[in-house]
Amino acid sequence: MARLVMKFGGTSVADIERIKNVAQHVKRELEAGYEVAVVVSAMSGVTNQLVGWTRETSALHDAREYDAVVSSGEQVTSGLLAIALQDIGINARSWQGWQIPILTDSAHGAARILEIDGTKLVERLAQGQVAVIAGFQGLAPDGRIATLGRGGSDTSAVAIAAAIGAERCDIYTDVDGVYTTDPRIVPKARRLARIAFEEMLEMASLGAKILQVRSVELAMVHNVRTFVRSSFEDPASIPRNGEPPGTLICDEEEIVEKQTVTGIAYSRDEAQISLRRVADKPGVAAAVFGPLAEAHVNVDMIVQNISEDGSTTDMTFTVPTAEYERARKVLNDSREAIGYEVVQGSTDVAKVSVIGIGMRSHAGVAAEAFRALASKGINIRAITTSEIKISVLIDASYTELAVRTLHSVYGLDKV
Amino acid sequence: MARLVMKFGGTSVADIERIKNVAQHVKRELEAGYEVAVVVSAMSGVTNQLVGWTRETSALHDAREYDAVVSSGEQVTSGLLAIALQDIGINARSWQGWQIPILTDSAHGAARILEIDGTKLVERLAQGQVAVIAGFQGLAPDGRIATLGRGGSDTSAVAIAAAIGAERCDIYTDVDGVYTTDPRIVPKARRLARIAFEEMLEMASLGAKILQVRSVELAMVHNVRTFVRSSFEDPASIPRNGEPPGTLICDEEEIVEKQTVTGIAYSRDEAQISLRRVADKPGVAAAVFGPLAEAHVNVDMIVQNISEDGSTTDMTFTVPTAEYERARKVLNDSREAIGYEVVQGSTDVAKVSVIGIGMRSHAGVAAEAFRALASKGINIRAITTSEIKISVLIDASYTELAVRTLHSVYGLDKV
Repeated sequence: MARLVMKFGGTSVADIERIKNVAQHVKRELEAGYEVAVVVSAMSGVTNQLVGWTRETSALHDAREYDAVVSSGEQVTSGLLAIALQDIGINARSWQGWQIPILTDSAHGAARILEIDGTKLVERLAQGQVAVIAGFQGLAPDGRIATLGRGGSDTSAVAIAAAIGAERCDIYTDVDGVYTTDPRIVPKARRLARIAFEEMLEMASLGAKILQVRSVELAMVHNVRTFVRSSFEDPASIPRNGEPPGTLICDEEEIVEKQTVTGIAYSRDEAQISLRRVADKPGVAAAVFGPLAEAHVNVDMIVQNISEDGSTTDMTFTVPTAEYERARKVLNDSREAIGYEVVQGSTDVAKVSVIGIGMRSHAGVAAEAFRALASKGINIRAITTSEIKISVLIDASYTELAVRTLHSVYGLDKV
Repeated sequence: MARLVMKFGGTSVADIERIKNVAQHVKRELEAGYEVAVVVSAMSGVTNQLVGWTRETSALHDAREYDAVVSSGEQVTSGLLAIALQDIGINARSWQGWQIPILTDSAHGAARILEIDGTKLVERLAQGQVAVIAGFQGLAPDGRIATLGRGGSDTSAVAIAAAIGAERCDIYTDVDGVYTTDPRIVPKARRLARIAFEEMLEMASLGAKILQVRSVELAMVHNVRTFVRSSFEDPASIPRNGEPPGTLICDEEEIVEKQTVTGIAYSRDEAQISLRRVADKPGVAAAVFGPLAEAHVNVDMIVQNISEDGSTTDMTFTVPTAEYERARKVLNDSREAIGYEVVQGSTDVAKVSVIGIGMRSHAGVAAEAFRALASKGINIRAITTSEIKISVLIDASYTELAVRTLHSVYGLDKV
């Protein structure tokens, strides 16, 4: 029988009534003939409270103890959902990360899943028992609980789906799918029926906060068909046959009608740093980015221009806003070693990206974007491109205008 | 180096400030030269909320899932206290029941500890690491978490103390020791410096709610010296030398000055049932108490009188108030089989008990009690005695008067 993983986030299990609603969703899939494993997050707000307590106890807390405290949230939800399922006559049991076990590396607080032994789960599923799995956690090599970092339950769900060979991994969330862009900015944004793993990875990395980036990577590597859908629909109203509302993240092979551009993403969490008149000599890039890497500053877009006379260069790059001050300090401290004249920066910038696997086979997509932005008087500070995306750095105040312009120019507006 | 177990209940770890106060208590004992294992309960109120959620989800919930949910409370406290200890420079780590492991039987929700492998704990303690252990829980044979039932953290503490060969098990609670009787009823009640295991067992069984009965049994079996003391004292004000305020529960060998009577206990949670004119024939007791046992009614005091003519008998016994209605129903259903004329009952009764190991060697203790109660016009409905206690069943309205009278007659009043 086909297996299905269903994942429910914090808002979907925020109280007992919603947990009972989740049980109805599970029931529907059982009746449709699936063997079901459910992955749950902590009840909305619980994780924040637990994290708050660890911080209140000590600003510098042991990540292993943080994990012991914070992982309890998912443990509670898994037990409650198992009870809710039993209450409507469904055979179910809860599984903690250490019981399966979900083996992780030793990076407590932000661990990566190394291996999941799905044997016991598959056995119980075949016996008709629903597995309710505490998301966000596993067992570290030291025999203690490790959490996967914020949003880690998505990763748990995809990893479980890969381990048990599920036909699909359904991510129930508070939105009903992935949109061509943020509908709060572009009311004409359309929900995508399907999106390729690579595209979703870019969308997730670039600011669409629907799925954790790592879960999309994992889905791509293991080819786990991942379906994003709303948990707030009445389970009874969902059609038995035909595709329910939502977005399927899948291999591009499964996408019949490929669009040139699939979506527009944006991020305001960017800061720009420019080094003026850097000595243009071998090893200068290493002199700039080495110290930044050591200080755990994540550098994103990098643009370097040769100066007119060829003796100095200008270097521009972006970092997350939260790391801006740290980056400035590192650069000031390394001024001698690098040898630049002046450092300039701004946190008042945004990155807007055009994403689509169709770009691979279509020329002129970038040119179209630049033309459209120019026609609205939007100045481009920096550009980076990959095979399936174009990102531009612009003044933050033009974010909405840029997103709307690009959404329209690539024909993504709902008709 | 001598090992010490310190146990802190829910009110002692109710918030972060109190958890930090607990860390100071631990620090004091480390400085006194002990290797320390701490056992913690859930933060006050947390267990009730978790239990409430399981009930809200389903009235009839799976005890294994109840355990998964409810055990999370102690998990949180153990992590937070470990962080608080680290914050003041103390090497510490949290231990969950399944990590040690504390092996229990399979009676989820009210499990008994079968075995604790103290090897890993002893190793870490010797390395100078404080062990912070989640109380109230262990690992059942099915590989899942089992809780020990309400108040189970006391039992965890005593069992850990036995497993690691601790010199003493300190139970920090919201009272500063065991009193000769309830100070709310008798303001002249005195705190006992020492009390024998057997006496404490009677006190605990008979209504003194300081320690869980099972923890006292366990302490007696393994001869774990258990010290009841207050967690609300300022850790800094506790004398380094000399005995701090509290009550040591120990072997009677350790009690030099034995009193005839050590304390007076009472319980209002009693109901009386009397069967009148029961046919006085062999097997009648089995006919009465067999069905009650099958219905899980706990029968306590049993008194049987032969009638004048020897053909019928009157039988009186007590049951917990909560089981009274169930007991009445069982007896009505078994009326034919038992063969009694009428059943009478009352929930308006109380049991008052006089406890002391000194009674073994002193005659006339019971007579003194009966005389004192009679002098106050208190009617005795039933009497049971053991080697070290006398219990009388009286009208509930006389409870305080009886307790005060007995407390005074045995010279327990504070001078």
